Amino acid sequence: MRNVAERIAVIGLGLIGGSLLRALAAAGHHVLGYDTNPTTRATARTAAARVPKSARWQITSSVPDAAAAADVVVVAVPLPAVPSVFDTLAAAGYSGVVTDVTSVKGAVADLAAAHLHGDGQSLAGFVGGHPMAGREASGFAASDAGLFDGCGWVLCLEPETSIGDWLRLAALLTAGLRVRVVPVTAAEHDRAVAAISHVPHLVAAALAAFAANDPLALALGAGSFRDGTRVAASRPALTAAMCGGNAAATRAVLDAVLADLSAARAALDGQDPIAALEPWLTPGAVARAAWPPAAGKALALPADADALRNLGRAGGWITAVARDGRSVTAVQPAERPD
Amino acid sequence: MRNVAERIAVIGLGLIGGSLLRALAAAGHHVLGYDTNPTTRATARTAAARVPKSARWQITSSVPDAAAAADVVVVAVPLPAVPSVFDTLAAAGYSGVVTDVTSVKGAVADLAAAHLHGDGQSLAGFVGGHPMAGREASGFAASDAGLFDGCGWVLCLEPETSIGDWLRLAALLTAGLRVRVVPVTAAEHDRAVAAISHVPHLVAAALAAFAANDPLALALGAGSFRDGTRVAASRPALTAAMCGGNAAATRAVLDAVLADLSAARAALDGQDPIAALEPWLTPGAVARAAWPPAAGKALALPADADALRNLGRAGGWITAVARDGRSVTAVQPAERPD
Repeated sequence: MRNVAERIAVIGLGLIGGSLLRALAAAGHHVLGYDTNPTTRATARTAAARVPKSARWQITSSVPDAAAAADVVVVAVPLPAVPSVFDTLAAAGYSGVVTDVTSVKGAVADLAAAHLHGDGQSLAGFVGGHPMAGREASGFAASDAGLFDGCGWVLCLEPETSIGDWLRLAALLTAGLRVRVVPVTAAEHDRAVAAISHVPHLVAAALAAFAANDPLALALGAGSFRDGTRVAASRPALTAAMCGGNAAATRAVLDAVLADLSAARAALDGQDPIAALEPWLTPGAVARAAWPPAAGKALALPADADALRNLGRAGGWITAVARDGRSVTAVQPAERPD
Repeated sequence: MRNVAERIAVIGLGLIGGSLLRALAAAGHHVLGYDTNPTTRATARTAAARVPKSARWQITSSVPDAAAAADVVVVAVPLPAVPSVFDTLAAAGYSGVVTDVTSVKGAVADLAAAHLHGDGQSLAGFVGGHPMAGREASGFAASDAGLFDGCGWVLCLEPETSIGDWLRLAALLTAGLRVRVVPVTAAEHDRAVAAISHVPHLVAAALAAFAANDPLALALGAGSFRDGTRVAASRPALTAAMCGGNAAATRAVLDAVLADLSAARAALDGQDPIAALEPWLTPGAVARAAWPPAAGKALALPADADALRNLGRAGGWITAVARDGRSVTAVQPAERPD
């Protein structure tokens, strides 16, 4: 794919949008940003003057102004604000590629179908996205051009997704931001993030809430409490939107984890709880000791939707898109010794 | 209490015992160490030569040699090895103060009753202990004189505990190691550590084991998975001994956490999961945001068992024992703003 400068609009300048604005501008793209909050726009405008001229962005006064001539529009607003941005893009007749950065992908695909394509006005192509990066801090003030360095970034590849649109975004992210792009369907993504993020948030909240009633426990809490409950301190509204916005997958994973913990409960109830717990603990210990998965050898893979989805399903990712758009550089996780 | 140098035996020279050997010797005490493993004894002997003369320890060839003239014996061996060390001390007629460092206190109190006092030969006083410090690394090689700086250290204060023995240990730990000594009963300790350590270990194992079946989830795992499952990588035998050795309390806390997660499950099943989850998430978020508890004002407290237990139950600790042994310096957690 072309590595030439693209014209990119970033709508929503919080932690993710602001960091993307900085990172894409630093990579040499022509970046326009917009945020609904005038104070944020002013801050982002002032911040642009503080970076080298070649890495500056521009701030516009409306979504259509930012999107007008953009090759790609990144919608980086919270989930509840996504439909109105889609409506605005559709009404403006935007016909480029649209992506988003929210943590639930099935719900956003439904919103794109209803609001971006629903009225037949828009010719835009939609590719759901989710950078696996975050911080406790939020807002443009916390934004950082290096936030995405080396992180995973899901780009949804559904049967109806244009492979050309998908590859264009994948090229932009791999070349400009050095992220690992993971090709999956929205349903696969939602199930995986329920397992690695949404259910861990619920579990952390339950552990913190239990200890809250016991001042002695709070006084004795050390490493396992600190790490096991860290994400419980997140804003409840954000965690509720994330888990509740992915309710079906979160419920399914929570059911499996609850069933597994009931087995531990039974082990504790037996004659020899120590002997019964050890085999119960072993699969998790093996998995966690082997995590994060090491990268295997990089290989060229045809830029074919089925091949890409198989790669993502197996835990692999891509690190580059060939200039001609016919192949990608794919990395599989290294085989684990058994 | 006297701040003069005491003669202290440390039995078992792993991470905790080795660190204690170093820290107590550095504090000016006369410290003798023993480990059942000859290689560990040789390593600890060599290490002594590398510290300033005033902070050196000695290594003996047997438990009785280490304990013979000791004011205090610290049993720093894993739980399964505790009974035989108690037997050896009882058979040698040891009559000073014995403490331990294992993470379950009810089970060790039972072992002390059966093995240290059971045959009527021993006049030793027993005070159960648990330093709230640890590392992934283990063994003497990982030991560090600074491991306990600022950490909490439970010293069990049962109705049958000699307050004199308890204060002697509390003085040794607060003056020499600058730890926060927490006075509680074994039962209160075991319930609190089930909440802040044992159940978090089980939950981490269940989360890691679920993700293990999904390569995509392992590839996408980021901060909440990393922290929420960190302790799942611990050796299953150690975690099993810890949770299974505290089975009754762990079961009770696990039941409460499972019931709470079932309520989250019901919220996910409702008409508006986002609205239903937010109030469910709030108590944990409030508790975690206020953790760790800040220290309130230090006050003098009479060195009375009931007053000390009330302090510990309220999340407080002591930082010093008065020279005359009649009062302690007590710190309550600061009031939380509501």
